[in-house]
Amino acid sequence: MQTLRSLLNLMPIPASVQMGSGSLKVDAGFTVALAGHTDARLMGASERFVERLGKQTGLLMAMKPANGTKATLVVHVDHDSKSVQELGEDESYILEVTQTGASITAPNDLGGLHGLQTFLQLVSVSPDGFVASAVIIKDTPRFPWRGLMIDTARHFVPLDVLRRNIDGMEAVKMNVFHWHLSENQGFRVESRKFPKLHEMGSNGQYYTQDEIRGLIAYARERGIRVVPEFDLPGHSTAWFVGHPEFASAPGPFTIERRWGVFDPAFDPTNDKVYKFLDEFIGEMAKLFPDHCFHVGGDEVNGKQWDANPKIQEFIRAHGLKGNAGLQLYFNKKLQGIVSKHGKSMVGWDEVLDPTLPKDIVIQSWRGQDSLAEAAKQGYRGILSHGYYLDLGWSAARHYAVDPLGDAAAGLSPEEKQRILGGEACMWSEYVNAENIDSRIWPRNAAIAERLWSPQEVRDPGWMYARMHVLSAQLEWLGLTHQHNYTRSLRRIAGAASSEEFNALRILADVVEPVKDYGREQTATEPATSDMPLNRVVDAIPLESRAAREFSEMADKFVASSCHDAGTGAQIRAQLILWRDNDAKLQPLAQRSFLVKEVAATSRDLAGVASAGLSALDALEHGGNTDEAWKAQQSAVVQQAQKPKGQLLLMPAAAIQKLIDAASVGGTCAAPRQ
Amino acid sequence: MQTLRSLLNLMPIPASVQMGSGSLKVDAGFTVALAGHTDARLMGASERFVERLGKQTGLLMAMKPANGTKATLVVHVDHDSKSVQELGEDESYILEVTQTGASITAPNDLGGLHGLQTFLQLVSVSPDGFVASAVIIKDTPRFPWRGLMIDTARHFVPLDVLRRNIDGMEAVKMNVFHWHLSENQGFRVESRKFPKLHEMGSNGQYYTQDEIRGLIAYARERGIRVVPEFDLPGHSTAWFVGHPEFASAPGPFTIERRWGVFDPAFDPTNDKVYKFLDEFIGEMAKLFPDHCFHVGGDEVNGKQWDANPKIQEFIRAHGLKGNAGLQLYFNKKLQGIVSKHGKSMVGWDEVLDPTLPKDIVIQSWRGQDSLAEAAKQGYRGILSHGYYLDLGWSAARHYAVDPLGDAAAGLSPEEKQRILGGEACMWSEYVNAENIDSRIWPRNAAIAERLWSPQEVRDPGWMYARMHVLSAQLEWLGLTHQHNYTRSLRRIAGAASSEEFNALRILADVVEPVKDYGREQTATEPATSDMPLNRVVDAIPLESRAAREFSEMADKFVASSCHDAGTGAQIRAQLILWRDNDAKLQPLAQRSFLVKEVAATSRDLAGVASAGLSALDALEHGGNTDEAWKAQQSAVVQQAQKPKGQLLLMPAAAIQKLIDAASVGGTCAAPRQ
Repeated sequence: MQTLRSLLNLMPIPASVQMGSGSLKVDAGFTVALAGHTDARLMGASERFVERLGKQTGLLMAMKPANGTKATLVVHVDHDSKSVQELGEDESYILEVTQTGASITAPNDLGGLHGLQTFLQLVSVSPDGFVASAVIIKDTPRFPWRGLMIDTARHFVPLDVLRRNIDGMEAVKMNVFHWHLSENQGFRVESRKFPKLHEMGSNGQYYTQDEIRGLIAYARERGIRVVPEFDLPGHSTAWFVGHPEFASAPGPFTIERRWGVFDPAFDPTNDKVYKFLDEFIGEMAKLFPDHCFHVGGDEVNGKQWDANPKIQEFIRAHGLKGNAGLQLYFNKKLQGIVSKHGKSMVGWDEVLDPTLPKDIVIQSWRGQDSLAEAAKQGYRGILSHGYYLDLGWSAARHYAVDPLGDAAAGLSPEEKQRILGGEACMWSEYVNAENIDSRIWPRNAAIAERLWSPQEVRDPGWMYARMHVLSAQLEWLGLTHQHNYTRSLRRIAGAASSEEFNALRILADVVEPVKDYGREQTATEPATSDMPLNRVVDAIPLESRAAREFSEMADKFVASSCHDAGTGAQIRAQLILWRDNDAKLQPLAQRSFLVKEVAATSRDLAGVASAGLSALDALEHGGNTDEAWKAQQSAVVQQAQKPKGQLLLMPAAAIQKLIDAASVGGTCAAPRQ
Repeated sequence: MQTLRSLLNLMPIPASVQMGSGSLKVDAGFTVALAGHTDARLMGASERFVERLGKQTGLLMAMKPANGTKATLVVHVDHDSKSVQELGEDESYILEVTQTGASITAPNDLGGLHGLQTFLQLVSVSPDGFVASAVIIKDTPRFPWRGLMIDTARHFVPLDVLRRNIDGMEAVKMNVFHWHLSENQGFRVESRKFPKLHEMGSNGQYYTQDEIRGLIAYARERGIRVVPEFDLPGHSTAWFVGHPEFASAPGPFTIERRWGVFDPAFDPTNDKVYKFLDEFIGEMAKLFPDHCFHVGGDEVNGKQWDANPKIQEFIRAHGLKGNAGLQLYFNKKLQGIVSKHGKSMVGWDEVLDPTLPKDIVIQSWRGQDSLAEAAKQGYRGILSHGYYLDLGWSAARHYAVDPLGDAAAGLSPEEKQRILGGEACMWSEYVNAENIDSRIWPRNAAIAERLWSPQEVRDPGWMYARMHVLSAQLEWLGLTHQHNYTRSLRRIAGAASSEEFNALRILADVVEPVKDYGREQTATEPATSDMPLNRVVDAIPLESRAAREFSEMADKFVASSCHDAGTGAQIRAQLILWRDNDAKLQPLAQRSFLVKEVAATSRDLAGVASAGLSALDALEHGGNTDEAWKAQQSAVVQQAQKPKGQLLLMPAAAIQKLIDAASVGGTCAAPRQ
C-alpha cells in the first residue's frame, strides 16, 4: 500500500489496484479510441475526457480520430447500459496502464465513464512531464446508490451551478442526483397542469420542464440518475400559495422566508388532495424518467391537523393512531398514486411502517438505527445521517460514517444487501449560488469515497492528502469552491493594502462556521431567505486546512515528547504569525463592518497564539508551568473557544494541548535539554 | 485631492469631482429608475447594474420597478444615441450622490452607461455597511477613441472570453473593441462568399457570422464599437491556404505555426485580387456595421515580391518606388474598395502616405513621431505604441505614455484634435483562453485611464491603489485574471504539501516574464502555436505586485537615511521569508518538471535575499561594507538578474539599492545608532 499511497491520488480509491512499473507519457500526441460498442454518450464522454485532460495538463489536446489499435487509450465497452439508468446496473471497469498504452474495458457505458475519470486522476506531473502511472485497476462500487442531494428550494440554485456540481459528482463517481424541489420556501418546478404552483410559489425562480429535461440528459451523459423530491405532506407552504384549498388550515398562504419546521400540511382527509396528487405526480412521473420518486414525508409537526376539528373527527372515525396514523394513511394513498405511475416511492425515515409495500426505499436522516430497522423489516434504505454537508462537519467525520456501521453492522448478509448506499445532503439555508460549491466541495469527495471504496479504506490522513489534490482539479471543471473564497474575502475587505488583506486571509484560514444548527442558535435575529450571505462566515470553507495541519503538527510535537526541534520551530513560526496578525488586521476592521465582525476573533487568535508561545517556551526552555500558569493560559483558550461572529477559532484546541503538555504533570512537562 | 484620494476608488478618474458630505446607504432596498428617454439598451444596462451591484456587495438585489421620483438612483437620459455608435458621440454624464439619493443625467445612452459604471465604483464597504460617497461628478472623456485590440488569430479566443473582456472594457469606459481577425496563423471569420477562407484557414476555429453579429450587439449594449481588422497584404498566409491564387508566390500554403514576420503577401499586380477584395470586403462591410474598417498594412517583408519577376516587371512598368511604392499602389486600390463599401479605412502606420485621402485613420505601433507626422499631414491617428500589453511592461510604464506626449506635444491645437486616442493591444503569441485575462487585466485599466482622464492625472502610486481595488471587482464580471493564476500554479505543483505550494507561490509572486520580445530571444527552441502555455512564465501576472511593494519599501527605507525602523523590520521579515523559501521549494522541484524549471530562480531568490540581509545588517548594526563586500553582493544580484526559465527576478534591483546604500560611500553607509 505504501507505493500506492505515494504515487496515486485516486479518489475514490478503487476496489483493487496493482502497481505496474514505470509510467505512460501523456503529451499532446495523446489519443483516445472507442473500440467495441460505441454510442453518443461514450463519444461525448471521450470528448469531455480530452478537453479535461487538456485543462488538467495545459497541453493542447485535440480529439483526434484514432484507430483502435494505435490510440494511447483504448476504451472497449461491450454494450450499452439501460436507456433509463437503473439502480444496481453493473458499473465495473478494468483500467490497465503500461508504459506504452492504456485500456479501459467495461461491460457497459457506465464502467467506461468511470474508467475515464479514474484515468484522469492517474495523470500527474512528474520530473519528465505529465504521466500516468502503470497500473492495473479492477474496480466496482461497494454500494449501488451514491448520491448528492441539493436543496434547490430554500435557496434557488441556478442550472449552471447544478451542472458544474454534476460534473464534480462524475469526477468522484457518484451516481444519483437527488433534486429537492419543493419546500415551505419555494416550489421550483414548472407544472403545466397546475401552473399556480410555480407561478405563485417560486418568486419566479423555478426550472422549466425543458430545463429539467436538459439537466436530466446532462446527468445521464455522466452516468448519474436524477431522483426528484416533492416533500409531502409537510414542508409544503409554497404549494399552498397558489392552492390553499389543499392545506389543513384556511389560507391565504405566503412563501415562507424563515427557516425551521412550519405548520402548513396537506389535508389527508380531503379527497381532492389525492385527485390533485394523482394528476400532479402523473405529470412529474413523465418528466422525471427515473424509477424512484421521492415524496419526502419528514417533519410534519401536526399543528394544522390538531387545530382542524374535521381532521380530528376523521382520525377518530377511521380509528387512526393520532397524527402519525393519519400520516400513514396519507402515505399509503400516496404510495398507491406513485406506484400507479410506475414509480417506487422513496421517503425520509418517518414514512417507515411495516404495512407499506416492500418496494419503497427509506432514506435515513435520523441514523443507522432506523436504517437497520427498515432492513430487518425488508425495506431497502440509504443513509444520509452523518452526511449532512450543511452541518459543517470535517471531511474526516463524514468519512468515518459507514452505511453498514453502528446498528447496521449487525445485520444479516441478506439484510445488508438492502442497504443501498447513501447520500450527501446539501440543505440550503445558508447556501446560495455563490458559496454552494464551497459547502459541497471538497468534503463531498470523502463521502463519495465511503460509498464507493472498500470498507477498510479509511485512513483520514491519506484521504485528506488525496482530497486536496482532487480539490484543485475540480476548479478546472468550473467549480468555484476555492476561488470564490478569495473573491468574497476581497469584497469583505474592500480597499485594503496587501498586508491588511493578508491579515484577513490568515484569520479566515483558521476559523470555521459554528457547527450543526449553531447558526440558528447563535443568531442575533432570525435568519431569512432575504438575508445576504456576504459575511466571513459565508465565505470561508467549512473546514480549515490550516488549522488541521497545525493540529497535526502539535500532535506530532507532543508525541515526540516535545523533542522534535524542526516541528517546534514550525509551530513557533506559525504562532508568531498569528500573534502578530491582529495588529495588521485592526485598521481594516475600523473601515469595514464585515471585518469588524471578526475583530474579536482576531484578538482571540492573538491571545491563544501568545498562550501557545508561552507553552512552547516552557517546553523548549523550561519555566514556571504551575497550576496558576495553566489556569491562566487555559482561560485564554476557553474564552477564545466561545463562538463570536458565528465563528469557531479552530487552532484553540491544539494550543490547549500544548498548554496541557507544558503544565506540571503534563506529557512533556520536563523541559528539553 | 487628498480627500478624494482616500475616499474614492474610481478608475478612470472623472474629469471633475466635487466631494459632498456623508454618503448614501446601499442596501437591499436599493432601486433604480429610468426617467426621461428609455430604451432596451438602458433597460438592459439597469438590469446588469443591479446584478453587478448584488455581486459586488453580496446583497440580495432585485430589479424592482421603481417610480422615477422615489428610486434610490434615477437615470435621466435625454435621447438615444446613434443606432450604429459613431466616433465622437457625446459620452458625458453628471452623477450626483447625496445622503438621500443619487441621479445620473446624460444627453444620451452612452453617458448613462458610463454613469452607471461610475456609480458601481463609488460603492464601497464602510463601518456601517455598503455606501456610495456623496459626490458630484461631471465627466466626459479626454479622447473619443479608447480601444482594446485582441488578436484572435494567432491563438483563437472563444466568444465567452471576448464577452467577459468586453464587460471589463465597459467597467473602465473603453469604447472600441478592435477585433484582429486574420493572420498568418489563422483566418477567423466565416465568409459565405469565400468559405475556403475559414474552412481551410482556421483549423475549425472561427467565428460564424451569427456569432459575430451577437458579439457586436453585446458590445453595443455596453457602449462599445467593434472595428474589424483584416490584415493586408502581408500577415496573410492563412488566406492563401484556401486561395493560393491570390498570393505573390506559388502555393500550396499551410497555416503558419511559428511566430514572426513571414513572406506570403497578396499580389498587388493581380486584378483578380481586387475583384476578390471587393466582394470580400463588401460582405464584411455588411457584417460589421462600424464606420471604420481596419486593413492592417503592417510588416510586409517584400520577399515574395522580390522573387516574382512578373511583380518586379510591374513595378518597373508603372514607375513605382520599389516594394514600398507597390504597397502604396495596393493601399490606394484597397482604400477605394473600402470607401466604395461606405467605410473609412484604418491602417497601421506603414500605410501613411500623403497621397491617400484624409478620411483614413492611422494606428501607430511605431511611436508618437509617426502619429504626429500623420496629424501634421491632416490624418487622424490613434496611438498603440507604448500600449502593447503583450510586452509585459508595468502598468506605470503604460500609464506614462500619452497620445499627446513626445512629438505630439508640439502639435497645433487643430492638429492635436486629429489624435483620436489610443488602443491597448493584446497580441496573442503567448496568450490563450486560459491566461489572456491576466495579460489584459488589470494593466489595461491604466491605459483606459490615460485615454479617459485629464492629462494631469498621472501619479502612479494613486493609480496602483485604485487599480488593485478595481482588479478584485473585475473577477465578479467573470474575468479570471486572479484565480487562474492560483489554479495554474496548482497544476504546475501537482500533489504538494501546503508548505511546498506556498513556497512556489512566494517565488511566483516575485517573478515576471522576460520583457518585450524576450521570449523569442531566450527560447531554446522556436515557439509555435502548438506549444502548451502551462509553465510558470505563462501562469504568473505580467507585473509583480509583491516586488513593486518591496521596491517601494526599500526606497522608503533608503530615503529615511535607513532610520525607519518599522520599514527596516518589514524588509527584514520579507528577506528572511525569501531566503528560507528555496529549501521548501526544492523537494517539489524534484517531482515536477514545471517547478524544476524555476529551481534556479528560486536559488537566486535565496541568494539575493541573503545579500539583502547582509546589507540590512550593515545598515542597522554596522559592519564591513568595503568595495570587496559590495562587489561580492552585487555579483550575486547580477547573476540573479540574468533571466532563467524566461523569468526575471524582480526584487533584485531593490536589493541592489540596499547594497548600494550600505556600501562605503553609499546613501546610508553610516550605521544607525
